[in-house]
Amino acid sequence: MTKIFSSSLRCQLPVLVAILEVLLLVLYAVFVTYDDSTNAACQTNQTDPLQNSVYHVYPFFVDVQVMIFIGFGCLLAFMKRYGFGGMVFNFLTATFAIQWAVIVQGFFQFYHDGKIHVGVFNLLNAEFACAVVLISFGAILGRTSPIQLLVMALLEVPIFAVTEWAILKYLKINDAGGSIVIHIFACYFGLGVSTVLYRPCLNEGHSKEGTTYQSDILSVMGTLFLWVFWPSFNSSLTLPGDDQHRAIIHTFIGLSSSTLTAFALSALLNRKGKLTMADIQNVTLAGGVTVGASVDMMISPVGAFALGMIGCTACMLGYKYLTPFMAKKLRIQDQCGIHNLHGLTGLISTMAGIICILIASEDTYGPSLYQTFAHRAPVEGDPRLKELQELIPGLNPGEGRSASKQALYQVAALGVSIGVSVAGGLLTGLVLSLPVLAQPPDEFCFDDTLYFEVPEEFDNNVLPTRNHDMVVIKD
Amino acid sequence: MTKIFSSSLRCQLPVLVAILEVLLLVLYAVFVTYDDSTNAACQTNQTDPLQNSVYHVYPFFVDVQVMIFIGFGCLLAFMKRYGFGGMVFNFLTATFAIQWAVIVQGFFQFYHDGKIHVGVFNLLNAEFACAVVLISFGAILGRTSPIQLLVMALLEVPIFAVTEWAILKYLKINDAGGSIVIHIFACYFGLGVSTVLYRPCLNEGHSKEGTTYQSDILSVMGTLFLWVFWPSFNSSLTLPGDDQHRAIIHTFIGLSSSTLTAFALSALLNRKGKLTMADIQNVTLAGGVTVGASVDMMISPVGAFALGMIGCTACMLGYKYLTPFMAKKLRIQDQCGIHNLHGLTGLISTMAGIICILIASEDTYGPSLYQTFAHRAPVEGDPRLKELQELIPGLNPGEGRSASKQALYQVAALGVSIGVSVAGGLLTGLVLSLPVLAQPPDEFCFDDTLYFEVPEEFDNNVLPTRNHDMVVIKD
Amino acid sequence: MTKIFSSSLRCQLPVLVAILEVLLLVLYAVFVTYDDSTNAACQTNQTDPLQNSVYHVYPFFVDVQVMIFIGFGCLLAFMKRYGFGGMVFNFLTATFAIQWAVIVQGFFQFYHDGKIHVGVFNLLNAEFACAVVLISFGAILGRTSPIQLLVMALLEVPIFAVTEWAILKYLKINDAGGSIVIHIFACYFGLGVSTVLYRPCLNEGHSKEGTTYQSDILSVMGTLFLWVFWPSFNSSLTLPGDDQHRAIIHTFIGLSSSTLTAFALSALLNRKGKLTMADIQNVTLAGGVTVGASVDMMISPVGAFALGMIGCTACMLGYKYLTPFMAKKLRIQDQCGIHNLHGLTGLISTMAGIICILIASEDTYGPSLYQTFAHRAPVEGDPRLKELQELIPGLNPGEGRSASKQALYQVAALGVSIGVSVAGGLLTGLVLSLPVLAQPPDEFCFDDTLYFEVPEEFDNNVLPTRNHDMVVIKD
Repeated sequence: MTKIFSSSLRCQLPVLVAILEVLLLVLYAVFVTYDDSTNAACQTNQTDPLQNSVYHVYPFFVDVQVMIFIGFGCLLAFMKRYGFGGMVFNFLTATFAIQWAVIVQGFFQFYHDGKIHVGVFNLLNAEFACAVVLISFGAILGRTSPIQLLVMALLEVPIFAVTEWAILKYLKINDAGGSIVIHIFACYFGLGVSTVLYRPCLNEGHSKEGTTYQSDILSVMGTLFLWVFWPSFNSSLTLPGDDQHRAIIHTFIGLSSSTLTAFALSALLNRKGKLTMADIQNVTLAGGVTVGASVDMMISPVGAFALGMIGCTACMLGYKYLTPFMAKKLRIQDQCGIHNLHGLTGLISTMAGIICILIASEDTYGPSLYQTFAHRAPVEGDPRLKELQELIPGLNPGEGRSASKQALYQVAALGVSIGVSVAGGLLTGLVLSLPVLAQPPDEFCFDDTLYFEVPEEFDNNVLPTRNHDMVVIKD
Repeated sequence: MTKIFSSSLRCQLPVLVAILEVLLLVLYAVFVTYDDSTNAACQTNQTDPLQNSVYHVYPFFVDVQVMIFIGFGCLLAFMKRYGFGGMVFNFLTATFAIQWAVIVQGFFQFYHDGKIHVGVFNLLNAEFACAVVLISFGAILGRTSPIQLLVMALLEVPIFAVTEWAILKYLKINDAGGSIVIHIFACYFGLGVSTVLYRPCLNEGHSKEGTTYQSDILSVMGTLFLWVFWPSFNSSLTLPGDDQHRAIIHTFIGLSSSTLTAFALSALLNRKGKLTMADIQNVTLAGGVTVGASVDMMISPVGAFALGMIGCTACMLGYKYLTPFMAKKLRIQDQCGIHNLHGLTGLISTMAGIICILIASEDTYGPSLYQTFAHRAPVEGDPRLKELQELIPGLNPGEGRSASKQALYQVAALGVSIGVSVAGGLLTGLVLSLPVLAQPPDEFCFDDTLYFEVPEEFDNNVLPTRNHDMVVIKD
Repeated sequence: MTKIFSSSLRCQLPVLVAILEVLLLVLYAVFVTYDDSTNAACQTNQTDPLQNSVYHVYPFFVDVQVMIFIGFGCLLAFMKRYGFGGMVFNFLTATFAIQWAVIVQGFFQFYHDGKIHVGVFNLLNAEFACAVVLISFGAILGRTSPIQLLVMALLEVPIFAVTEWAILKYLKINDAGGSIVIHIFACYFGLGVSTVLYRPCLNEGHSKEGTTYQSDILSVMGTLFLWVFWPSFNSSLTLPGDDQHRAIIHTFIGLSSSTLTAFALSALLNRKGKLTMADIQNVTLAGGVTVGASVDMMISPVGAFALGMIGCTACMLGYKYLTPFMAKKLRIQDQCGIHNLHGLTGLISTMAGIICILIASEDTYGPSLYQTFAHRAPVEGDPRLKELQELIPGLNPGEGRSASKQALYQVAALGVSIGVSVAGGLLTGLVLSLPVLAQPPDEFCFDDTLYFEVPEEFDNNVLPTRNHDMVVIKD
């Protein structure tokens, strides 16, 4: 039985990866070159090497790397028979997604003179595109082949990149932590894919779906890595200085209050009053998303605290009531509950961001208002711009938007993000349904033996029930 | 049986956390605001965003975060049936302790104009208060409910904060790595609590107290995270420049020599000449504490090396002889041996610091003597101050103390730290004994099933003895 | 049986460590002092503390620390019965190697006025020497006692240090990522040792040599830590500015393409088309080594991509065909396959470096050519030097080498590295064969019970076959 399905990986994975690599190789060869901070020929006698942009960007890049490869990797390895799959397919998908995003985002954001110009800043941006793919992956974890995951990344990255670019270029919103652009997009894209890949049998529970003591601990480690480095994630694309500083402390405070809330609600909602590890692994992180859209604004420390509590509560109730409802009634299966951790919290975050935009004033921000809300700065030529530039050297001209106009653009961006992601997800799901993509059969969902050589004692150790059976048989 | 005790968590944990969160929410709302480096309105046309304090503090903050949440978390997860408890209660307690310390330390150190002013520097400080709580936690690991841990943090943080403030403000000591203020305080506080929570039955050993192969490996990983980032911990509050640089290399050298010593002693003291994992997990770290009080001084590299060896030897002998003695004769149970790793080493560190203060001279330090030993700088108005300020621009006026006077203040601080921590610990222990705090019964110590939903195969996998029994019965 | 062998550790490990520590203590006392950036007395009123070299070096140092202690530690813990040994002997060996390298490299590179002058930069250099020892360790993992490992470090560090110094001082090559000096040296040294320690019986496979599900996951975590921080490793000793920036992005791109290639080849070369965890754990990293020798040059992003693919392919074919061949025909056993991951890739990297040197021109690099290829700068007194110094302030005089001359020096360095490492490795292997060094007997290879107190359920859990036997016997 195993052989029939697994043997297909032998042709398909190498062929697909070979195609993707040749594609990347050609695109890198033709289009990718160095940017000014990585090109030796651009250094002059005025260049101070220690002012190279790498020193500002690289520390954030490394922190996000830890989140992507180790944080997500461990978090997704929570299943008793799918630890290899969770950690290793995350590794594969993330690696491809980043490389691919360097190209695709490059065409939209870093393309001039016929070339995409790269430095570590491009890689940091590409990590955000990668995070989008990995979040979507959470919805379909254990139900997909690595072939499907690579194809999903292949399709999702460009759909994301064009949406991101359109929002950045035309809508021009405030979303430092990426609640609208990243979390909501990733969530609804993933749910779109999952809807097409619906498997009725999984609603009854699957014998291989549980955790072990060790896998739960591993998964909590992933949570802790995400928790610790999330302030770097949320602050890495903000303006340097006080904006970045605020993003860091807001994220920390929001995560803290959502963690405390998660413990309380986990015990409260369990009928025996015990803590559930899945809650600790996921719901504690809700605050990091919830503060996202307003993370660089003057929301005040208590604002971050309250957002963490609200986001966590929504997330927890989502896990308890909404996810089962969606799976049974709406035929939307959401393996890791991304709709709770990224969707609901993203929506709350978007609303909070809009409120913060509407109440932001020069009283609170001083002239920095026109930096944090760059699109509210006067347009080029407006005499008010000159005045402000004396107060803030180097202030860029903006769009001259009012607060309420900016708020409307935020709403528009939310609509675009949801609309494109749902459509893109459904379309991608259709592609992933093609039989050639080696979708695992129901009985081999959540099972590493399909795609991996597993140690011989795997069945003995990981499935004690079978051990038990064996003993019984012998008797 | 299980239900009787565990059901109590359902009411108590949510209620307690709800109370704590509302308390924090109100305090944050009323008292907490931004400091100058996080407040948008404080930025002027003279502000250079890249000089924001966040860029100097945040890298150290993140390193200490990794230590607190991942290092401690893994290290404390060493028991076979208490891996969830060790890692997850550490997460809960640390999160609350930091939030609470921001408020309490804020009142003592960052309060002006009716507000506590926060930036990432406050969070870094709060992490040190958190470390104090987590060290104390080590003494009573596995014998306490999460309710008790939160109450302990609730009481210990203010007692610590007032002690820290009094020592900083009135005694003005040199203790860059926190040997006196953090390690000794945390140790004796924890032992005070543990004394009140004494359980005679545990002296005979507890069936659930052992480790597994996996849990030992996990715990060593925690050790390695603490080991790798300890130089950041010890240097994060020193003066920038050569002081911070020395703190880093001394910590590294001290840890290295204590690690080598720990391996040698572990094999020597084992009757079969084998290595004991508990030694590798704990005693290797002794050097990090031992160099603490003099970590920024000119102790010379060999001084750091020797301190690591001495501290490690004391720590190892403590584990071997003192901990059992204290448990049996003095009724002080010390689950993780914090008296060895933080108490004995802290005392040695304090003595080493005093010796270094007494022998410090301008020959060795140059005028920097009055920076590293800031309280030995001449007082405001002393003509010698002006001279020194020409050599060291920006030197602050000090207390004009002599070396021996400074040494006496160090002794005084040691006395204060021990006195307050013992008293505070005993008092806190009394509070923790209140029946309402859901203290686990003896037979459910070191057992995750009391507070957690555990995977179904938990008993099969983690307790092979029961598996074995089952087989025997079947025969 | 166990007792006969294990008891020997009791005397030998403490005695050896005691000797090594006293040796280090004396050497530190007599020779080691602070460098200008750690010595308080060297600070003047012109010193800006925030410009201390620690702030540039320490972030890279910490990243490499994580690689050495956590990355290597987890990666080497892949065996079912040798998890303690892999992780803990790595800890012991690394700690000693760094301390020892501070002294030995110090004599060659940082010695003046009768003293070795240390700062965190020395520690960073020592970590590279340590990496050399740990790579060599990979060849003999599980077949050596901790005594042997310490003796190996004791001998390998000086042999490496003198080779490194001779190459730096006399041959003056370009090798930013250390492909020639570190990876190739470490590989052939390790193979030399392994050849002498040849054990015929291990070629038939060893009953204790397998992995478990948990140990495979742990080992992948190690891979991920190495993967994430490898850009820091490869860039930490490059010139600041664009050179360092390029080293970071090349390493990332090279690792990415080798990761994708490794997945494809792993599935392709497995007869069932499944992924093999050992490939994921090792071969994914090949790109990091392959880009090493040219990592700071203008190899272009696609160049890094191609190098990752080529190195990975060579590495994978090496694991599949060359390692078994070497073990059976050449009597060279290579437990972790270091010849594939460090040797073959190192050779490819060296060749790539030479090609890059030969084609490097001022067209591509501008005047920076004489910084990246420092030995091609005109010699002191050459009027061309003055011209260049106007374009690049602070350019050091070089050797006035042509591209082809530099290429010849690279070849010479490769020869020196291979020659010295093979000879040194064979010699060291002979020393390690001395019976007094407690070499484990064949049946206790890959077995923690020889050197560690293991938890009582170790045999039940880790060796299900024995469990199974037990059941059968009972029947």
